[in-house]
Amino acid sequence: MKQLINSSRHIRQQLLAGLTYTYNDRLDWQRETGIITKKTIADDKVVLISGGGCGHEPAHVGYIGENMLDCAVMGPIFEPPASNEILQAIEQTYNGHGTLLIIKNFEKDLASFLEAERLAKEKGLMVTHIIVDDDCSIEIGTFEKRRRGVAGTVFVHKILGAAASAGKSLSELHELGQELVPMIKTLGVAFSPASPIGLIPQQYELAEDEMYFGIGIHGEPGYRIETMQSSERIAIELVNKLKQQYTRKTFTKAAVLVNGLGGIPLLELGIFMNDVQQLLDIEDIEVVYKRMGNFLTAYNTNGLSLTLLLVKDENWLKYLNAPTDAFGWK
Amino acid sequence: MKQLINSSRHIRQQLLAGLTYTYNDRLDWQRETGIITKKTIADDKVVLISGGGCGHEPAHVGYIGENMLDCAVMGPIFEPPASNEILQAIEQTYNGHGTLLIIKNFEKDLASFLEAERLAKEKGLMVTHIIVDDDCSIEIGTFEKRRRGVAGTVFVHKILGAAASAGKSLSELHELGQELVPMIKTLGVAFSPASPIGLIPQQYELAEDEMYFGIGIHGEPGYRIETMQSSERIAIELVNKLKQQYTRKTFTKAAVLVNGLGGIPLLELGIFMNDVQQLLDIEDIEVVYKRMGNFLTAYNTNGLSLTLLLVKDENWLKYLNAPTDAFGWK
Repeated sequence: MKQLINSSRHIRQQLLAGLTYTYNDRLDWQRETGIITKKTIADDKVVLISGGGCGHEPAHVGYIGENMLDCAVMGPIFEPPASNEILQAIEQTYNGHGTLLIIKNFEKDLASFLEAERLAKEKGLMVTHIIVDDDCSIEIGTFEKRRRGVAGTVFVHKILGAAASAGKSLSELHELGQELVPMIKTLGVAFSPASPIGLIPQQYELAEDEMYFGIGIHGEPGYRIETMQSSERIAIELVNKLKQQYTRKTFTKAAVLVNGLGGIPLLELGIFMNDVQQLLDIEDIEVVYKRMGNFLTAYNTNGLSLTLLLVKDENWLKYLNAPTDAFGWK
Repeated sequence: MKQLINSSRHIRQQLLAGLTYTYNDRLDWQRETGIITKKTIADDKVVLISGGGCGHEPAHVGYIGENMLDCAVMGPIFEPPASNEILQAIEQTYNGHGTLLIIKNFEKDLASFLEAERLAKEKGLMVTHIIVDDDCSIEIGTFEKRRRGVAGTVFVHKILGAAASAGKSLSELHELGQELVPMIKTLGVAFSPASPIGLIPQQYELAEDEMYFGIGIHGEPGYRIETMQSSERIAIELVNKLKQQYTRKTFTKAAVLVNGLGGIPLLELGIFMNDVQQLLDIEDIEVVYKRMGNFLTAYNTNGLSLTLLLVKDENWLKYLNAPTDAFGWK
């Protein structure tokens, strides 16, 4: 795959410049930093901050908006922002109602965000966090779940974002997040390796006719390489593996996210969504909410992920349906 | 590139099933056809219909909605729908105020849509059309402009759609369209050939380090193959070629569309938008409207196009800014 960039050293700055220029009606960017904020941050609600490395666009800048995030802090490609930038973002957006950090479960992300939280608390600010670990891929060999934080994170942005706007306190949001995250399960599949040439080392190879189940969003390996399958067969594998994560009896209402990893045509996501829908229909799982498109991508990857969310509470659906002007939520 | 499909014979049906399932709150689909309609078609305005082959998603189904299209008629991949399906769509959506067809300038598309218009007129219906020919690529050898209808079509959907909702008559919309289309100019660039394996013959090859200026949206060749360039250099070429299409003195206000062809990461579109913005700034061209994302794609192509629209009339800007629930307009 080719790369349309200028210099690998300026990716973050030039990307954030382009994004915030395009959406300058709603976003502000503090140049020379990775801090992007909502133009007006409400002073009567908890502030929501997320972030991570670049390379997952529209995440997370695209989720700043009404009923979603107030701020995103973006690092270099596939690298989280430094804790001092996150701290700066917490301080600058602080309105006295507390700050919730939404963190994808990767070691480096946790280190940066939790250090920023610690420093902010030392300064007397109310800060807490939610860790999203929706990935159900397993380690080959140990069969241990990888629990990476992947596309399901956008459901967390939306539900907690709307709940914050509805007036929930920091501790209520934390409780809601703790209840919500275990109900979100995701599995990804790649048809090409993530290949940011010269930016990160390529972690696996795929032959012309091969695909990889269970890959991560930074080019991490999955659990099985296979000859390329039909959309329906891939849907069967993903739906089956995901539904096993739930107690069958309680799994009756689902929200579905068919997420493109960035290099896959919408035509193919549409065909795949049709297959997923038929499988859930056979299982008598009612789909009460659905989204399809590029929501949380993996730079230069052709592939997709499927996320299911067991909608345990009618309020979650209300929060999912709350309107937003976040440009990534289409 | 790999293809995530089931059977090449069922692409249209399975894609339309997936799209209309995802957006069943706003779209209706007549199964076994390529006809998708807005759930409720207003009875007090001109009906707008567009369409063409599949493989350009979200076009055109994604532009059905408030202030945009009422109906899209989709053919097989890269092939326009048959005239009898378009006729059926015209008849079924007819409300007495007339129907405007928006057609991309390709021989086959013109043949299908104009035959449907002829048949509808024979039945006494008021129908007319607008042909979009925004592509400024030139034939190698003859230097003749290709005038294909490409990404700028979505500006036509939006402006004429909002004008129709504002109460313009069929003849007024036709006049507006005739004035609007020559102000829209587009150039595309591909970093990979469109390669729908076994679906259409591949029309050109690109080496690992090559790119192609001036390509079309069905894998048609462009005007120059070059070694892969930086985002800034590509922006310089496209902006320069596009601005030459206008009389410099009158070209002061522009709408900009940075369109992904489907296989390019949003990260790269963001970097490219930043380069375009700087060039237009130097030229003292005021950007009064901008959009970035996958708007009109070319199945399995890594590349982008840049569209400029000279905003001659403040109403055009008002129409561009009119709200819509069309899922492709993000």
